[in-house]
Amino acid sequence: MIENNSDQYISGYSIYKTKCFPTEVSFDEKVLNVTWDNGESSEYHFLWLRDNCHCDDCVTSLSKEQVFEICDVPFDIKPLSVELSKNNTINIVWDYEEHKSSYHASWLKEHCYSEESREKRIMSPKVWDKNVIAKELPTYHYDAVMNDEEVLLNWLYDQRDYGISKIENVENELKTVQKVAERISFIRQTNFGMVFNVISKPNANSAAYTNLKLPLHTDLPTRELQPGLQFLHCLVNDASGGESILVDGFKIAEHIRANHPEEYISLTTLPMSFYNKDKKSDYRFDSPMILTDEKGNISEIRMANFLRGPMDIAGKDIESFYKAYRLFIMLTRDESFQYFHRLNAGDLIAFDNRRILHARNAFNLEEGNRHLQGCYVDKDELLSRIRVLERAI
Amino acid sequence: MIENNSDQYISGYSIYKTKCFPTEVSFDEKVLNVTWDNGESSEYHFLWLRDNCHCDDCVTSLSKEQVFEICDVPFDIKPLSVELSKNNTINIVWDYEEHKSSYHASWLKEHCYSEESREKRIMSPKVWDKNVIAKELPTYHYDAVMNDEEVLLNWLYDQRDYGISKIENVENELKTVQKVAERISFIRQTNFGMVFNVISKPNANSAAYTNLKLPLHTDLPTRELQPGLQFLHCLVNDASGGESILVDGFKIAEHIRANHPEEYISLTTLPMSFYNKDKKSDYRFDSPMILTDEKGNISEIRMANFLRGPMDIAGKDIESFYKAYRLFIMLTRDESFQYFHRLNAGDLIAFDNRRILHARNAFNLEEGNRHLQGCYVDKDELLSRIRVLERAI
Repeated sequence: MIENNSDQYISGYSIYKTKCFPTEVSFDEKVLNVTWDNGESSEYHFLWLRDNCHCDDCVTSLSKEQVFEICDVPFDIKPLSVELSKNNTINIVWDYEEHKSSYHASWLKEHCYSEESREKRIMSPKVWDKNVIAKELPTYHYDAVMNDEEVLLNWLYDQRDYGISKIENVENELKTVQKVAERISFIRQTNFGMVFNVISKPNANSAAYTNLKLPLHTDLPTRELQPGLQFLHCLVNDASGGESILVDGFKIAEHIRANHPEEYISLTTLPMSFYNKDKKSDYRFDSPMILTDEKGNISEIRMANFLRGPMDIAGKDIESFYKAYRLFIMLTRDESFQYFHRLNAGDLIAFDNRRILHARNAFNLEEGNRHLQGCYVDKDELLSRIRVLERAI
Repeated sequence: MIENNSDQYISGYSIYKTKCFPTEVSFDEKVLNVTWDNGESSEYHFLWLRDNCHCDDCVTSLSKEQVFEICDVPFDIKPLSVELSKNNTINIVWDYEEHKSSYHASWLKEHCYSEESREKRIMSPKVWDKNVIAKELPTYHYDAVMNDEEVLLNWLYDQRDYGISKIENVENELKTVQKVAERISFIRQTNFGMVFNVISKPNANSAAYTNLKLPLHTDLPTRELQPGLQFLHCLVNDASGGESILVDGFKIAEHIRANHPEEYISLTTLPMSFYNKDKKSDYRFDSPMILTDEKGNISEIRMANFLRGPMDIAGKDIESFYKAYRLFIMLTRDESFQYFHRLNAGDLIAFDNRRILHARNAFNLEEGNRHLQGCYVDKDELLSRIRVLERAI
């Protein structure tokens, strides 16, 4: 049954591999029905099909962007004819202007919006506690990440799913952290610059730039979009203390959801006020600490006790907020969630700054130095890079 | 009644001007009650007060960040004593560790979380149609914006409230758009670079880089966070055609809310799929087209017909989505919303890319050239800059 070009279809830089073939197509008043040879079936509304016509009149060849607008055909547009052709393509002639559209079956299957197909496309994070990550911490070699596209893709999958990874044997040069980050894409700039130096400074404008203990936090919860990925490259760590502590914020949020339903409601609905004031900047953002998506799945954590402003919620909610917030802090102190890691020169850790809380112990500079360099890359860039690398597989 | 330092209070770079004075303080089991000389009253929960202690033990002098964590005092912490002192300060001694906290009355009033105080802090945009903006378009002179901090602040207020402004007599040099944007803060980088050139290019990777008509859209709805402000500086515009069209997306959204309640529900709840595929990037993001905040206020518009992927929603919602989406596009074509403006060399327009839709007519290069330079700055940066400039007033 396989004909020329029917085993895959390339459109708009994406490759659609054929996993099954249509055995029957039919249509009623509103939808096209496709039956597949694996027993599944799909339906596609006419408006959806017309909206997705790939022809040269509907999509400009210059930038592969749609020029057709769906309001320019009747709402009740219907096929005059539907034909399943031998090369695995479904051809439609529409009853308006006799416009012709063709759809490769593999493209249609990939974009099927049945409940089962949509369920299958949902990706779940691999949520971890101390014991899990101690065994499974994704660890890569610097040279492989820098030179091998397949290793790069695997690293990015792990980064997306575990939210944390480690790269070893990293060059001990300044700004190497930027080179690693740029294997994904450009840096997310902030008021702390492109690459920031985590060292103890005399006029620190952040607790990060002291030798103090930093409690578990995400960086820049004061921004509407917290930086997606954080990279920390250890250049020197001879000082005593200064261990890094990492916690999967999703694990704590799941624990609260399962065991403390009232506190979970408070933390997912009451906005906290995050402030970061400096001489030349004054950032503020209000958001609940645990964010959920439209299906109620835990999607993001915002948390930095030291970057907060006065709570600005209704008086009736103040007590329940503090009850829940105190619980969250107490759980960050629970060692069963905490992964301890002492970074050595040549180590680089990357973590999802919108999920993983990080902390460090105080350190003592009398015995040596401690110097990390860090930078951020946004989540859009991570996912874009994964999609582009996947095209080549 | 005014004593030394009681007319204002400076804390963490912010200035709290005294607008009224406390006449009485009292406390019960859970809250401190303050009565003000303008007849208003405020209540502050003990946990909230303890959380906001400004003392040197609770806030590190190094970075002015909080080191105290609220879970380290009892949930039922109470004052042993409360005193209203002559310099407009309320002093509390707590029943736990006899910790002492002081709060300036002006700071307390500013952060009062009564329903009335919270209502007053809400800012509303100035929503416009063609007739309003034709009369009220905020227009500034380049030299004043670049050199005068007060003019700069007024420009930024207008930009925040109207979502659009124009700067005239701008230097006709490349990258001047970046100089203007950097009066606010650093540039938001994208895959199109820091500064992008809107010219007709042979191998366009965006319809923007052709001479085609561009329908009304926001830029980069394919990103989780659409760029906040967009700046377009006109260097040359001798080609015929190419007029800019600007529409307040909030006005269209308000119109739909008032007149088409079903379509409004579809557009605020059903996620659209935005795609932008290129050789080296593949961005995708799903979001409703009209976003609302937790109070139901219209807060953002995402829209670019030419940057969409196949809709990925339940089959039962496809028809209602297309009904609503077609309505939205038809409304963008309604001239009563459209502000036409022909940019001339030396003009710069800035607009809220998360609210204002922009378009341009096709242009004809046989008669001349057209060259705009553009860049983005995020909303966090705009609001931060306003706060910092306000400190100096």
